[in-house]
Amino acid sequence: MKDLTELTIPTYADVEAAHVRIAPHIHRTPVLTSSYLNELTGAELFFKCENFQKAGAFKVRGASNAVFGLSDEMAAKGVATHSSGNHALSLSYAAGRRGIPCHVVMPRTAPEAKKDAVRGYGGIITECEPSTSSREAVFAEVQAATGAEFVHPYNDPRVIAGQGTCSKELMEQVEGLDAVIAPIGGGGMISGTCLTLSSIAPGVKIYAAEPDQADDAYRSFKAGHIIADDAPVTIADGLKVPLKELTWHFVSNHVTDILTASEDEIVEAMKLTWKRMKIVIEASCAVPLATILKNPEVFAGKRVGVIITGGNVDLDTLPWIKS
Amino acid sequence: MKDLTELTIPTYADVEAAHVRIAPHIHRTPVLTSSYLNELTGAELFFKCENFQKAGAFKVRGASNAVFGLSDEMAAKGVATHSSGNHALSLSYAAGRRGIPCHVVMPRTAPEAKKDAVRGYGGIITECEPSTSSREAVFAEVQAATGAEFVHPYNDPRVIAGQGTCSKELMEQVEGLDAVIAPIGGGGMISGTCLTLSSIAPGVKIYAAEPDQADDAYRSFKAGHIIADDAPVTIADGLKVPLKELTWHFVSNHVTDILTASEDEIVEAMKLTWKRMKIVIEASCAVPLATILKNPEVFAGKRVGVIITGGNVDLDTLPWIKS
Repeated sequence: MKDLTELTIPTYADVEAAHVRIAPHIHRTPVLTSSYLNELTGAELFFKCENFQKAGAFKVRGASNAVFGLSDEMAAKGVATHSSGNHALSLSYAAGRRGIPCHVVMPRTAPEAKKDAVRGYGGIITECEPSTSSREAVFAEVQAATGAEFVHPYNDPRVIAGQGTCSKELMEQVEGLDAVIAPIGGGGMISGTCLTLSSIAPGVKIYAAEPDQADDAYRSFKAGHIIADDAPVTIADGLKVPLKELTWHFVSNHVTDILTASEDEIVEAMKLTWKRMKIVIEASCAVPLATILKNPEVFAGKRVGVIITGGNVDLDTLPWIKS
Repeated sequence: MKDLTELTIPTYADVEAAHVRIAPHIHRTPVLTSSYLNELTGAELFFKCENFQKAGAFKVRGASNAVFGLSDEMAAKGVATHSSGNHALSLSYAAGRRGIPCHVVMPRTAPEAKKDAVRGYGGIITECEPSTSSREAVFAEVQAATGAEFVHPYNDPRVIAGQGTCSKELMEQVEGLDAVIAPIGGGGMISGTCLTLSSIAPGVKIYAAEPDQADDAYRSFKAGHIIADDAPVTIADGLKVPLKELTWHFVSNHVTDILTASEDEIVEAMKLTWKRMKIVIEASCAVPLATILKNPEVFAGKRVGVIITGGNVDLDTLPWIKS
């Protein structure tokens, strides 16, 4: 792991530059509201719909910023990552837009649907065994063979600056927000949110929402140092990864509080969002609403931005349908 | 059944008046696009998202126009309808906004979820036996006892003028449309579309989309007179009802063509829309996309408005998941 001193902490100028850089490649996603959910929570909720984003998730912001910020010489060698989730899709999409290769190291045991999705966006998959040692070894081989630039899913200043464009748009779209809440896994979206809001709207409170069953960020926040869990199990599968030094920097300095919810509460909030807002969201994105419903006293009477991080769901296996 | 001469054919001035009347009670719904679906179909598709509408469907436009157009004296007696679908929800919602009663006659065998939804919007349910004769008898009793104004789900000029506001918005939101396509059941939405487009954009072609298994409008269109089926069976349960004289007037005079799709094609288009656009839509609203995919030569290279009519789905029983 790199020391924080080896990593550049991005600034708001990087967010502004990122927004210009990625604008041709992303959607300025809409903000939706629901009078039903406002009544239910007693808050005024503004849902920033990154589930409508290119490649189906906010991660395309950071990935595009990394890809389009490369020099032509570096870009020619392509980019690489290890991920089986939205970052892999997003990096593949962005690389495809630039016309460069994107190498993705994935466990051979990953669902075929996920592999197909990555290939659908043009990603080149190299399979590894389902262990950290195999993944690291295979990834090192791929990188050595190709010279591709590694783009970490979140512990990368280019990625965090890209994610910061989401809250920049939200602040342009909604006036007078009192708070913003987003899910937290590795902390890329929350870090981008912290970066932007601490610069342009320092009075806005920042809440992170996390599953009870993968509450390493919550425990890190309370303990004052990173606590990383080994393979937590939760329906919110985008939120299993631990904080790293760069995201910990933002979380520890700018987050107001981290709130958690149970698996049942997450599934209930997910289904409620589908039913009432008529949008398809991942379980991970339901964690903020679950925590708002659980902690009404924190949000009542407030204008709250809720970042819906993605919509890439396996429609054949929904958590509230027993098959 | 009333003769056409007994019914007033609404004009575009009625649509304009409706839009002013209902504006405080409805959403101006967004228009979404999908580059994936554009590539897949070869057309440029603009989805008018009435699934985001109040009460979850376009029907709130017509229902609100009927409710808010009543004199205070008539309104005091309330409104009434027989429906177990979106019209019942919408009329209940609109009546609630005006603070008047809404009586809904529903078969006692209707799913409890549908009854709960109507009650959730404030509707007062009177149950009948699941037969046309019982429904008509019970409805007559309710009307006699209350003096409530009957608002038919579609064969009503106030309702059609209200539905016409959807295409009015669509034409304001998207320039240069070549065609608009919407599902057809009783024909309320299509009639409103015909009314608006024939007045303000007569060059825009109007397509209606219907399930193979409930293709009474298609056969009526080809035969030149209304053919009504008895209880057709289709997953697109909003489209089982037959045309009536007022909607037939618009369909026979202004529709370019009626296209049909199989049950499998409808389910596939529904799932594709959920998966790619991340929106929850009813099976009925997937019929237009299913027919576009089936008839690419009709739409290729064209700018096509696609009306997504509603999003009230039972999330516990999805047609592509066998439980």
